[in-house]
Amino acid sequence: MVLFLNIIQVDEAVNIINTITPKLESETIPLLHSLGRITACDIFSPSDIPGFRRSIKDGFAVRSADTASASEISPAIIKKLKPAHMGYQGELGTVGEGECIYVPTGAEIPDGADAVVMIEHTEGAGQRIIITKGVKPYENILLPDEDFRAGEILIKAGRIISPREMGVLAASGVVDVPVIKKPVVGIISTGIEIVDPRTLPRRGEVRDVNSTVIAAFVTEHGGLPRIYGIVRDDPDEGYAILEQALMECDAVLISGGSSKDIRDITSSMISRLGKILAHGIALAPGKPTIIGQCRNKPVIGVPGHPSSTYIVLNVLAAPMLKRFSGATRVRQVKGQGILVENITSEQGREEWFRISIDGDRVTPIPGKSGLVRTLVESDGFIRIPQDMEGIEAGQDVEVLYW
Amino acid sequence: MVLFLNIIQVDEAVNIINTITPKLESETIPLLHSLGRITACDIFSPSDIPGFRRSIKDGFAVRSADTASASEISPAIIKKLKPAHMGYQGELGTVGEGECIYVPTGAEIPDGADAVVMIEHTEGAGQRIIITKGVKPYENILLPDEDFRAGEILIKAGRIISPREMGVLAASGVVDVPVIKKPVVGIISTGIEIVDPRTLPRRGEVRDVNSTVIAAFVTEHGGLPRIYGIVRDDPDEGYAILEQALMECDAVLISGGSSKDIRDITSSMISRLGKILAHGIALAPGKPTIIGQCRNKPVIGVPGHPSSTYIVLNVLAAPMLKRFSGATRVRQVKGQGILVENITSEQGREEWFRISIDGDRVTPIPGKSGLVRTLVESDGFIRIPQDMEGIEAGQDVEVLYW
Repeated sequence: MVLFLNIIQVDEAVNIINTITPKLESETIPLLHSLGRITACDIFSPSDIPGFRRSIKDGFAVRSADTASASEISPAIIKKLKPAHMGYQGELGTVGEGECIYVPTGAEIPDGADAVVMIEHTEGAGQRIIITKGVKPYENILLPDEDFRAGEILIKAGRIISPREMGVLAASGVVDVPVIKKPVVGIISTGIEIVDPRTLPRRGEVRDVNSTVIAAFVTEHGGLPRIYGIVRDDPDEGYAILEQALMECDAVLISGGSSKDIRDITSSMISRLGKILAHGIALAPGKPTIIGQCRNKPVIGVPGHPSSTYIVLNVLAAPMLKRFSGATRVRQVKGQGILVENITSEQGREEWFRISIDGDRVTPIPGKSGLVRTLVESDGFIRIPQDMEGIEAGQDVEVLYW
Repeated sequence: MVLFLNIIQVDEAVNIINTITPKLESETIPLLHSLGRITACDIFSPSDIPGFRRSIKDGFAVRSADTASASEISPAIIKKLKPAHMGYQGELGTVGEGECIYVPTGAEIPDGADAVVMIEHTEGAGQRIIITKGVKPYENILLPDEDFRAGEILIKAGRIISPREMGVLAASGVVDVPVIKKPVVGIISTGIEIVDPRTLPRRGEVRDVNSTVIAAFVTEHGGLPRIYGIVRDDPDEGYAILEQALMECDAVLISGGSSKDIRDITSSMISRLGKILAHGIALAPGKPTIIGQCRNKPVIGVPGHPSSTYIVLNVLAAPMLKRFSGATRVRQVKGQGILVENITSEQGREEWFRISIDGDRVTPIPGKSGLVRTLVESDGFIRIPQDMEGIEAGQDVEVLYW
């Protein structure tokens, strides 16, 4: 008995996702709320940064020529003028030949000076200071456009905003940041045996794990999850809920494809409101996955087993969420280790093997279908391509962390 | 002129932070809000999961003994009873000798049966089915406590809650999750030249970068930042703000220690309300760092230069935030690469060299003090221990990602 007639390869499935997932519109948000968001366009520096000649040391602003020959043995002796102050102070004074002005780190360099002697290389002597180490022109000075030039790109489009990007934006006064909107992802669970996690299941019932896992995964990947609850066995209810989700969301994930009965509900929900583009992927676990498009929006039917669902989320939902955001780079954390047990894989399908890693020992976690515990026992996975039959113990393997 | 009298090593600084940072209290929050939080105690399974004998395949529940010798050549022929249904259905029926009942994946196994024959290994024949591959006892069945036993630990204390932990908690009906409270971290910027990022700086002024960077870093590391604004040059204002922050927060970070004048304000703010435990760390960049304790709470004075601040956040604030939360494991993402340029380091201090990585090429980013752009040019850093003088081009290096 054949359940899946047209099983497609993983790459093909990802291509379909990429084809049907548009980049979302942009919105402008306050800088302090932008952590983890994706820049919607190149962001340019509105002005030179720092915008003035700035000392990078505590010391004395001098004409470097006056100090050229200074050393411990033959110090330069220079007249000290009134110290400069930090911040906007109007007239700073001018450093003439044989003169200097004290500047703290970050202060503006007074006219006439072209370098700063570090305070550690000076000694006080009344109205004069003794310089024991000479400086070259521009030494210990930031030029007005040395950090960023006006018009230069600060942050490219498609970049994930970390605290570091936020610092650069703050420095340039970009306090309203153009970012891509967060994709809203609807989540529907199906299954006559599925009950809300707040419920005490009766015999034969299990709690809905996937709504929670999918919602958290969507959040972790920059989306806004919206949980629509459980469709038990009423197809009309299913259509109505999917229709509502499609109006309110950018994509919908439907969980529950691990039994034939339920799979029928999911695929008929999708068919009635759109079309099925793939039904069955050469992926283990995760074969009974459906990719559809309804009302021009991606709809993914993921397996009912949470551990399979989690793989499919990584294989298909992660690229979908990335695509929505226009992110150009998403870091997949990788590691290396030595496999401590043989693993075998069926040719013709890609296999994602859950593993735990301890130092450089990589241990496969046998994932009996339907177990939830492998979710927390594993640190990540090994990806076995479809043309391999497995990996022998003792081999170096690349580990991809969750 | 000596600015720092008692410079301490990095490890010692981290030890001080660990000593003065308590684990915070716990609170109970809804499961769906628990992503990224830290479990406050071991969490136990309230019941067996799945709680009943469950099929992991679409197929026929049988007495395995009836199928023992079944093969393609010599199939077993078995009488088909009315199919079982998913979910709670009261009476399931009983599988007698020579009988079977259809069970979809996830359904309860009827009494009498002890295994499931996958539907792929059967053929229909009217009221009977033909089994072409025998099964062993328990094959394709999850036992009632096979996923989790009642009373077993689901998630240990101190674990970061990912979508996977959330799935396990949902499966067990743990919808209220005991987690450690988020540490509230007050942020004060100091510096007479510093203006709010929303302001157009006059000549000699620069925008406050550190409040934004610190706030984002605190958020990223599981804390709640609270920005108290900029203390320009009024020590009394500084005391008042620090005092308020200490009342409202679990820790305070004060930015602006890169000039002697400002450093004096920060250290006198800390001294007046508590004590200074360290002033100066053998770390580059990041030497002018202050560790204090006021009203029994950690207070860290970080350098004014954002790129130095960011290093100090990683060196000291990250362990402080981890300590508050009681997290037992925080992943530091590492990579390997080949250094393409020599880097030199002063002995006696630990140096954090910003780098960018492209494939396996690791390029040092020269970090002229005071530049903000190195924040976004770098992917991470190389940590050079205090007893090394540098690393030569061509060597393998370990990269730590931001």
